[in-house]
Order: sequence, then structure tokens, then C-alpha cells
Amino acid sequence: MPKLPKGFRAHVASIGIKDTSDDFVVVASDTPATAVGVFTKSRFAGCSVSLSRQALVDNQLSAIAVISKNANVATGPEGDSNAREVVSEVARVLDVADSSVAIASTGVIGRHYPMEKVRSHLSTMRSPFVGQDAGEVATAIMTTDTHPKTASATVGSTCIVGVAKGVGMIEPDMATLLTFFFTDAELGFGDLDPIFRRVMDGTFNAVSIDTDTSTSDTAIIMANGRGGPVDHVAFESALREVALALTKMVALDGEGAQTLIEVRVDTARDDAQAKRVAKSIVNSPLVKTSVHGADPNWGRVAMAIGKCSEDFDIDQDVVVIRYGDVEAYPRLLSDEDLARLSHYLESEEVLIHVSLGIGDGCFTAYGCDLTDGYIRINADYTT
Amino acid sequence: MPKLPKGFRAHVASIGIKDTSDDFVVVASDTPATAVGVFTKSRFAGCSVSLSRQALVDNQLSAIAVISKNANVATGPEGDSNAREVVSEVARVLDVADSSVAIASTGVIGRHYPMEKVRSHLSTMRSPFVGQDAGEVATAIMTTDTHPKTASATVGSTCIVGVAKGVGMIEPDMATLLTFFFTDAELGFGDLDPIFRRVMDGTFNAVSIDTDTSTSDTAIIMANGRGGPVDHVAFESALREVALALTKMVALDGEGAQTLIEVRVDTARDDAQAKRVAKSIVNSPLVKTSVHGADPNWGRVAMAIGKCSEDFDIDQDVVVIRYGDVEAYPRLLSDEDLARLSHYLESEEVLIHVSLGIGDGCFTAYGCDLTDGYIRINADYTT
Repeated sequence: MPKLPKGFRAHVASIGIKDTSDDFVVVASDTPATAVGVFTKSRFAGCSVSLSRQALVDNQLSAIAVISKNANVATGPEGDSNAREVVSEVARVLDVADSSVAIASTGVIGRHYPMEKVRSHLSTMRSPFVGQDAGEVATAIMTTDTHPKTASATVGSTCIVGVAKGVGMIEPDMATLLTFFFTDAELGFGDLDPIFRRVMDGTFNAVSIDTDTSTSDTAIIMANGRGGPVDHVAFESALREVALALTKMVALDGEGAQTLIEVRVDTARDDAQAKRVAKSIVNSPLVKTSVHGADPNWGRVAMAIGKCSEDFDIDQDVVVIRYGDVEAYPRLLSDEDLARLSHYLESEEVLIHVSLGIGDGCFTAYGCDLTDGYIRINADYTT
Repeated sequence: MPKLPKGFRAHVASIGIKDTSDDFVVVASDTPATAVGVFTKSRFAGCSVSLSRQALVDNQLSAIAVISKNANVATGPEGDSNAREVVSEVARVLDVADSSVAIASTGVIGRHYPMEKVRSHLSTMRSPFVGQDAGEVATAIMTTDTHPKTASATVGSTCIVGVAKGVGMIEPDMATLLTFFFTDAELGFGDLDPIFRRVMDGTFNAVSIDTDTSTSDTAIIMANGRGGPVDHVAFESALREVALALTKMVALDGEGAQTLIEVRVDTARDDAQAKRVAKSIVNSPLVKTSVHGADPNWGRVAMAIGKCSEDFDIDQDVVVIRYGDVEAYPRLLSDEDLARLSHYLESEEVLIHVSLGIGDGCFTAYGCDLTDGYIRINADYTT
């Protein structure tokens, strides 16, 4: 597991929100960092999302605090007050303003934090923090994730470290459930903001586990400048590499998932149409179950393309559907082809590649198969 | 099972498309009937849909032919030619024009009809037909349905008989997979058309099993006038009753389904917003799995409302969420309430009732829970 970049330190602990696993983490920078956040568009967004949006108004953060196993969503004024109290306590310990601490929370909706336990822990917290292991940070933010998700890359003499969690309720609209990036590269807000948004659009905003958009989606990057300036193109490329690696980890760890599904749509009218078609395919329960069953039932891919019924320029007579590099439509498949495709669908990663034959638009979406494991995990999550 | 109305007769047989079960049915009226059809909007609509659209241009039909266990979709010019041949043969036997015979087909996508078997059967078919049992018609159009679906109602001295099939790939955009209505009421096209479209919008267009829109959706009504004129208001009410009964049967027979979920949304800005929110809830895999697990996890209903992120007037502070008549949000539930709700969620029919507190719009959507049965049925459907 990678170490946090220069100048970042973490506090990781178990408050006992649900059990004895780590459920509380604060990552702090020893100097104020340029910061950008993108958040869920949900109309039921949690109070952590509102507070972090406010904290990011000046494009600077000193720390991010995360509580897992409880989303603190739909909890009314009391929930809001509890979140503010956590932020205040963290700010007090770090000796920074409340407005330079972001907060994120993930887990069950509609329950209050167990504030006695939270207060008791916060009163014992001391700075400076000593944690440096990004794996511990990634572990503390997990809910039903089966493993911690971290990725890293170097850019010149600086580095980028990303952590993410998320396995269900995932069709991010602006960001996935929770993902944080820390870098010691020196970047002003004017440079970091467009880079971060572009990277998020092609990575986390391209993943869907189950079409359900979380109330807590939060993606934040902190750049503290401790490693000095970087080449912006190289930085964006490295950030994309880190974010894409995390995106694929999130898709493959989708609840009950056994297969990563990558859907590439090209020659669309524009990128927006390519995204619409790719999302329609990657979200189709019938496509997802056919991949799970290693069944080369390409008719379901055709169905999912056809669902984009407002896209009047999609013409079934020019569409091409491939699994990997094997054309399935319009070419008729031989029994031998079908057997080969069925074998291909047993891989850990499957590519569905659709060409619409209209223009230059393209988009790649990431998802996973739909299995009985998803049903088992979600049929009795709170009870 | 109801008998077909006056003047309608059926031919039901097994061609041997997939096995020895009945897979071919023609329902014919002994006089030309006023007819209305609504069809899938899919960009991969099958050739049966195209042919039936053409047949309905003059708002008249003498017969509907249906082949089940093969959708004849994405089969190119050869598939189109095969469909035309079936229509021609049926028209020849009935001694009517090709253009007065509609055709529908349902089953696996991307395979040709076994035309030798089809031709061999068609050559032995003789009119007039003798079948009168709507149950036999409903049985012959089934694919993975677990039981035939029929419903009927009387209007004055006339009657309406409806049949439907459909268990997966169901989020109708204009109609569900296949449903046909036969009536001996006397109604001109100008009266029948708006009545049929209104009824379909509130019934079949309100059901979703799995968000996947079929390539073969076809709903047709035939009114042959043999029973004489009817009161239009009474007719529409009776037709809605029949269509709603079939809609609920389709939802409850959703692949793997154990629970019918009815989602009622009221006090929306308008009916369109109510429909958007109701569909978002009834289609959420996390809501569906929580109902399956009898888990009163109302936070997932909040999440699904929140997903309608473009509906900026939805305010989480005025939304009310109820299961049956028990308020779950914003009122906090006691442990006793939760136990009672969990018991309620074990019913065969569950109502989720959401008030948005904005205006007068309302809509009711129908769906089903998501179970491991759905995964099992769909992970190896073609193989």
C-alpha cells in the first residue's frame, strides 16, 4: 500500500459506529492545500455534502474527516448539528478554522451518529497525526467493500495517492461514493479544478454498479505543494491513471460482482450519445446477468442500444456489436464462435464494444455483472 | 379462463419452435375489427413490430398472429421475409388481405424462425378456427411466464377480454411485451384510439420489471362491433380494469418476483414528475432488494427520490415517505414500527407512498422485488 505524499498525515481509529473495525479517519496536510471537490447531485444529499461544499468555497482545505458505517443522511437538524460538531472538534485539534475541514460520511441512511461514542473519541484525539499508510485510510472508509482501494503515481518529484470506497448505490453523477486524492504537487485552483473535473468525468463518472446514485458521493483532491511545481499535462495523465485504477477496483468490487464489464461505444454522433448508449448497456440487468452466466446473448446488447429511443439516428442496420474483438452482430455467429465467446465471458474483465457508425463521439463506461451475491448482500443490509 | 368475445375465434398450436409447448396462435374476427396498436420505441424494434405498424395504418384488422419462443429481432432481410411469409399464409387461410393481419413475436433475439417447421404447420391450417378459450391463447404466447394471464370485464351487453405475456425485459415505453384485447363492442377508431392510449399509459406503461425495454413490445385492441354500441365512459373504465389486472399479473410474475410493488407518488409538480419519481423508486435495485428482504430500509426510497436530480423543486424537508399507511420519513420510526413494517413487507403486495408536497401531480407505478430467482433465470437464458 502506498504512503501518503509529503506533508500529509492521517489519524485512523475505531469509534465503534457499528462494530470494532476502523470507522473514523482524518487526513491532514501540514500546510493549507489547494482543494477541489465534486459531489452527488442527489436531492437527498447528506449534510456532510452540504458542509463540505461550504468548506470548499475558498478552494482550500487543511483536512478531510470521514466517518464510515453511518451516512448521516436524512437526519434533519440534529444530524446537521452532529456533523458540525465533528468538524469543529477536528479543527480544534488541528488548530485550524472550521471552514478548512471537509467531512464525508457513508453507510446506513436515516440514523444518527452515536454521539456519546463520537465525543468520547474526539476528546482523546491529539495532533500532529502520525499515520502515513494510505491502505489504513482506505480501510477505515470501507462499508461492504471486500478490500481497501488505493492507487498512486509519481509526477516528476511529486506523487499522487488516491483512495476510494464504494460497492453499491453507485451511479455517480458527479463522483462516486467517496474518493480522495492527495498530492504534494504545487497547483493553483485555476489549474487543478479543470484537470480534476476532466479526470472525474472519464473515470468515476463512468462507473455504474446498480444505477442507484448515492446521497453521499464525494470526491476531493488536496494539493499541498510540498513537492514543488509539476508539468500539468503529466500531472493530469498521472491523476487519470490513479483515478482509472480506482474506478476499475470499485467496479470489480461491486456488490456480489465477479466480472468487470467495460463498455466502449465509438462512432457516435457525439460523446454525450456514446455515454448514453454505454450507460444503457452497462446498466442493463439482462446484459449484466448474461455476462454473469458467460452467455454470449448479444441480443440483449442490441436491446440495450435500442432502449435509447430518443436517439433517432441510431440505425440497427449499421450498428456493430463486438465482445472483445469478435464481431457478434450483424455477422451471424457460428457455434464455434459462440463457444469461444462463452469462454471469453468467463474472464475477470470483459469488453463490450459497440460502433454506432454515425460520427466521432466515444465513451467508455465501467460496471460489473449482476449476481445472486448482490441480492444476498442487499436483501437484509440494515437488519 | 374467459371465453373470447362474440365473433372471435382462435387457432392455437405447437410448431415446435423450442419445444413441444404451444408457440403459435392466431386470433381472428369473423368481421373486420376497428384496431389500435401501440408499440415499443426501441431503435432495435423487430420486424414484426414494423409489419404490424403497417397493417394498422387503416385502423382495421381481421387477425393477429403470434409466434412465441423466438422474437425474430435483429435477423435482417431474411427475418423480415420470414415474417411476411407467415402473415401471407395466415391471410390466405382466412381469405383476407395480408394488410389486415398483424404479427407479434417474442423470445430469443437474433435467431431465425425454423421455417421448415413453420411452413409445414401453416400448410395444414384450416379456417374457420374453433378455439374460444382465452386461456389457451394466453398460454401459447408465454415464454418464461409461470402462468397464463387473462382478464375480462363486461360493458352492457358486450365484453372485453385481454391476454398478456411478459416477465423480463420489461419497462414498456408504449406497451408491454405482448398484450391483446378483444371486444365485441362497437367503437369507431376515433373513439377507440384515445381510450386505448389513455388506458395503456396508466397501466402497461406504468409497469417495470427490470428497466429493460423490449424490442417486441406490442399492445393491440380489436373491436369487432358484434355486440353493438356501448357507453364510452363505461367501456374505458372496464378496459382499464382489465388492463390493470393484467398489469399487476405481469408485475407479480416478473422473473423471480415474489412481491408486487406499487409505488404511488402524489402532490408532485405535475403527473410527469410523479411518474419520474415513481419509476425511479420502482426501478431501484436497492429498493427492490430491500422489499425482497422485508427490510424497512426507507433510506433507499429517499435515495431513489434524490436520484431525480434535475427536479430542483423536490425538497427533502417536505417529502413524506410511507409504507402502506405508516409514515417512515420524516417521522423517526420506533423499533416497534420497524418490526410492524418488516411484517408488512412480507405481504404479496406492498405499497410505497410518497408525497412530494409541491402540486397536484400523481402517478402510480407497478413493479416487483429483485430476487436471486431473477439472476438464476437470466444468467443462462439462451444456453
